[in-house]
Amino acid sequence: MDQIKAMPIGFVKTKLTKSMLKKRQYNSEIIIFSKFEHGLKGIEEFSHLNVVFWMNRIHERERKDLKARPRGRSDMPLVGVFATRSPHRPNPIGLTLVELVKRKRNILTVKGLDAINGTPILDLKPYDSWDSAEKIRVPNWWKQLADLKNN
Amino acid sequence: MDQIKAMPIGFVKTKLTKSMLKKRQYNSEIIIFSKFEHGLKGIEEFSHLNVVFWMNRIHERERKDLKARPRGRSDMPLVGVFATRSPHRPNPIGLTLVELVKRKRNILTVKGLDAINGTPILDLKPYDSWDSAEKIRVPNWWKQLADLKNN
Repeated sequence: MDQIKAMPIGFVKTKLTKSMLKKRQYNSEIIIFSKFEHGLKGIEEFSHLNVVFWMNRIHERERKDLKARPRGRSDMPLVGVFATRSPHRPNPIGLTLVELVKRKRNILTVKGLDAINGTPILDLKPYDSWDSAEKIRVPNWWKQLADLKNN
Repeated sequence: MDQIKAMPIGFVKTKLTKSMLKKRQYNSEIIIFSKFEHGLKGIEEFSHLNVVFWMNRIHERERKDLKARPRGRSDMPLVGVFATRSPHRPNPIGLTLVELVKRKRNILTVKGLDAINGTPILDLKPYDSWDSAEKIRVPNWWKQLADLKNN
């Protein structure tokens, strides 16, 4: 298998703790490296972005286990990592839809990003309605998880 | 800048031409390598997935230009690549929401994937409503592009 070489285009700057990040209600900053700043021209005209990031604190050994219990809960079924959003996956890529609050040169203020301080950013995608689906189906255990989260 | 090493977890298998892929109406297959098959357990309970792929046919030189005219159209403004979905970006990562039609062992049949035959897959994310936003804003030039596409 050929290895794929990616590069960070910037990083996350935030003082939020992990438990605050999970709520996805607060602002963080994305600092884009100066050499890529020209690539941001016009991005401020979009209200939302999909942020693709690399969870570099996930250890190699944590990337080898292909099964996970959602949120590590013993009452959840053991499923494949590709059926979860667990960070423990072969490529620790994170994907989060955020609101773009403002841009100032190479600094984006975004709301709802759940990546920790220092996380490398791989890509930013302007969000449009084709990135959403209306009639969707998710497993029952997944719905239970969402209910637990809201309590 | 630290380099990031990712690995393909599988690849796209399709006979669709580029112009057909753009329509995002047809089925393709995603072949997951056997060693990662266990990671798929339960994925078939989701109707939709976000597919993260690596557009490996994009040349190094095409990744350096940080400005693009959407769809290469001269009537479109020259904007930053991060304000477009152009494949010509520092990390040629593709992100497409697809419908999961069926799974048979390590083979997923998906509808709407716009990646060409042989494209390496980096990750699969089960799709839920939090991956969508309701009130969104996109630039006027972007809307014009969507109108052109529909004609």
